[in-house]
Amino acid sequence: MINKKVIIKILGFLLMLEAFFMFLSFLVSLLYDEGDSLGLFYATMITLLTGAILFLLSWKSDPQILKREGFIIVSLVWIVFSFFGSLPYILSGAILNFTNAFFETISGFTTTGSSILNDIEALPHGILFWRSITQWMGGMGIIVLTIAILPVLGIGGMQLFSAEVPGPAPDKLHPRIRETAKRLWGIYLLFTLTEAVLLWAGDMDFFDAICHSFTTMATGGYSTRQASIGYWDSAYIQYVITFFMLLAGTNFTLSYFGLHLKFRKIFKDEEFRWYIGFISLFTILILFMLLANSNSDLEEAFRTSLFQVVSIITTTGYVTADYLKWLPFAGMLVLIMMFLGGSTGSTGGSVKIMRILLVLKNSYFELKRLVHPKAVIPVRLNGTSLNQKTLTNILAFFSMYILIFAVGVVVMLVVTPDMSTAMSSVATSLGNVGPGLGSVGPMDNFYYLPDFGKWFLSFLMLIGRLELFTVLVLFTPMFWKS
Amino acid sequence: MINKKVIIKILGFLLMLEAFFMFLSFLVSLLYDEGDSLGLFYATMITLLTGAILFLLSWKSDPQILKREGFIIVSLVWIVFSFFGSLPYILSGAILNFTNAFFETISGFTTTGSSILNDIEALPHGILFWRSITQWMGGMGIIVLTIAILPVLGIGGMQLFSAEVPGPAPDKLHPRIRETAKRLWGIYLLFTLTEAVLLWAGDMDFFDAICHSFTTMATGGYSTRQASIGYWDSAYIQYVITFFMLLAGTNFTLSYFGLHLKFRKIFKDEEFRWYIGFISLFTILILFMLLANSNSDLEEAFRTSLFQVVSIITTTGYVTADYLKWLPFAGMLVLIMMFLGGSTGSTGGSVKIMRILLVLKNSYFELKRLVHPKAVIPVRLNGTSLNQKTLTNILAFFSMYILIFAVGVVVMLVVTPDMSTAMSSVATSLGNVGPGLGSVGPMDNFYYLPDFGKWFLSFLMLIGRLELFTVLVLFTPMFWKS
Repeated sequence: MINKKVIIKILGFLLMLEAFFMFLSFLVSLLYDEGDSLGLFYATMITLLTGAILFLLSWKSDPQILKREGFIIVSLVWIVFSFFGSLPYILSGAILNFTNAFFETISGFTTTGSSILNDIEALPHGILFWRSITQWMGGMGIIVLTIAILPVLGIGGMQLFSAEVPGPAPDKLHPRIRETAKRLWGIYLLFTLTEAVLLWAGDMDFFDAICHSFTTMATGGYSTRQASIGYWDSAYIQYVITFFMLLAGTNFTLSYFGLHLKFRKIFKDEEFRWYIGFISLFTILILFMLLANSNSDLEEAFRTSLFQVVSIITTTGYVTADYLKWLPFAGMLVLIMMFLGGSTGSTGGSVKIMRILLVLKNSYFELKRLVHPKAVIPVRLNGTSLNQKTLTNILAFFSMYILIFAVGVVVMLVVTPDMSTAMSSVATSLGNVGPGLGSVGPMDNFYYLPDFGKWFLSFLMLIGRLELFTVLVLFTPMFWKS
Repeated sequence: MINKKVIIKILGFLLMLEAFFMFLSFLVSLLYDEGDSLGLFYATMITLLTGAILFLLSWKSDPQILKREGFIIVSLVWIVFSFFGSLPYILSGAILNFTNAFFETISGFTTTGSSILNDIEALPHGILFWRSITQWMGGMGIIVLTIAILPVLGIGGMQLFSAEVPGPAPDKLHPRIRETAKRLWGIYLLFTLTEAVLLWAGDMDFFDAICHSFTTMATGGYSTRQASIGYWDSAYIQYVITFFMLLAGTNFTLSYFGLHLKFRKIFKDEEFRWYIGFISLFTILILFMLLANSNSDLEEAFRTSLFQVVSIITTTGYVTADYLKWLPFAGMLVLIMMFLGGSTGSTGGSVKIMRILLVLKNSYFELKRLVHPKAVIPVRLNGTSLNQKTLTNILAFFSMYILIFAVGVVVMLVVTPDMSTAMSSVATSLGNVGPGLGSVGPMDNFYYLPDFGKWFLSFLMLIGRLELFTVLVLFTPMFWKS
């Protein structure tokens, strides 16, 4: 029997939390007085009341949360949040169509950053603030999810870092979750504030600085400007954001070590080294292409290349250059980068560097095993050899990701005739990146896709964000039987 | 120490075999007397003499062939054969450029079927015969390779069928190879002759019938006509070829059972059932598309869909319809089918049905493992549970295939600006299919690609045909050290 009451209670509690952030947006709207206050107020009240009613109705629930409840809660939270989270857009009149509003909201909460808006500057500040803070909340959710909850459910790869997080999954959610979450949210908040101050010190006004630091740390990529970061044309701002995107795509437990000055632990971390390695490789490739095909100076080309590579690999999705104007092979590099993703335990999405590096390592080791068929050649990560079960799980994740991508492209080609659009919209949604190629490129948006396409991409954002398994397991009969 | 002499001796012997088939083509050319006889004669003599010299020079070699020699021979044979095999084209003046001749030849021997020719009917019959028979030889090579040699080297997935083939790899190549090869070549020859007779009984003349049965059974796809099978516009011929493509894409050990009337064994085989399942699925999808978008009658639409699906899934590559004119999502279906491939132990290339089914099964089982974390849930094939090592190997193959594909597309985009062309040329080469999409589509050819692109695709054909590992292991330092 599934403990429905405790699920409802937790959802109720979290809805009240969502209402709190809506209330903040309401306060911002009062400050600017641009006609969105009433809509935000109603949205806050509806969300708050619904949350309170759900919470109180299931007040006396059995507090036991087993794995199954865990899976259901995690998937439901993102959906329910997106449903209520679209109210501010609709009630303020910023986005009138429900499909569009839901797409914009789930793209926010999943920290994807794909948008249906084609005149962002026209939105009132309260709504812009809400749009940015959905991503920041999504980032908070992801940190606690990947570092604390998913390992307990047996998903996500973070179970490898067993020293840092609650150990081999017990059946009940561990009370240490709260402590871990607090510690990491502290870092998240600290980085957000630091970035906001640094951006404010540059060309950005206070409001833009806050909003962008929200969406940087979440690797979300929503901007308050239609031209994204390209709007500012400031090397300082681009470098600051690049640095914080890098941080946001790094495992937060490593940042925790960094704040305690244990730098050796960071630089010895294999995933971190590959993360930096991939970024360097792609930056150099694109730098060469930029230098060979335009007469921009070295610093500018380097900055553009680095910014765009970090933005896509970390799955942030900010834009300073229209990469559709680059050579075709650079477009393919962009598509490939969408599959890398940030580090495990970061706010980045997609396959993630650790899985990619283990897939590559294992491929190489298969060749080794051919040469030495009798030797036992385990795949190691940071000196520890992985057991076969974990390895199979990671390889399965990678294959499943590719299969979902392939099927997704077929589905999208039913609604759009263009291969680049279909492939990149699926890759960018599943990887929670943001912009794509073709007609959903960096200077365009998702507005013109048919409704079916928007709902389908929303679904991909959700399963991508929740590491596939968390959502897909709900579609198996054995989940509901057991 | 690598036993170089025995490698040279075997290559010498096989070159003499190649010369024999060239001699057959020379005889055909005499029959038609179209000016290609002298070229074919010279090519035969050069190949024969080189083979004889190599063979005699290393006459007194130590006969011991260990695994390492095995790997080297297998890769070298395909390259050396393609080098000498391009002589008939060059010396007869049919193809003057070496790159083009080599591309056409390796595309033949790897049973790919991608062509640089844009006026096939203009070629003399001797050369057309040589072109078809390169594929037939390639098919023979593949049968003995996948069923007898690769399992001994620890590659290819056929090690699963341990009852049928030499068991757990001993270090020396097993003498039973000869027997297995003979038995299966018997079936290959029988099917080829049967198909030739059936085609001859239809609208084809004797020459075309022979050539097409060569390239059908090899899942090669070279035709004697520029319009491929579309030339005949005969339902009978299309159904006959469809049936034999199906056979060629089936595990030859299953055909062996079939000839012994053990049909239950065939229909209980899981790979065979998935093979038929995939073909049915894609045929239905494309059939619906054809019916919804044209006013062709049901039988014709069914025949076109079935023919094209079987042609691509078995990696044959014959064409009766310009699938570029289909809807975009059908193009993507074609691209996906290029990754399926025939069954293991068939002449089909690409990933192969067995690996795809195990990847899918394992993905599903990962979800099962999530629900029941403590249960041991092995992946089974035909009732036998796979060990983790085999499973990891198959998942590694799949991941490596995808990674090579992705990198390949980046490389091809340097020489062609079109995404469809780049993606499909890599998929079709790596999977040994034949035609692609975009400017290498079913009605076009590979002539206009730059030389670098042709060499790169030739390399992909080779590693695809030899199950990746066989070739890639040669690029690792440990192979040469051990």
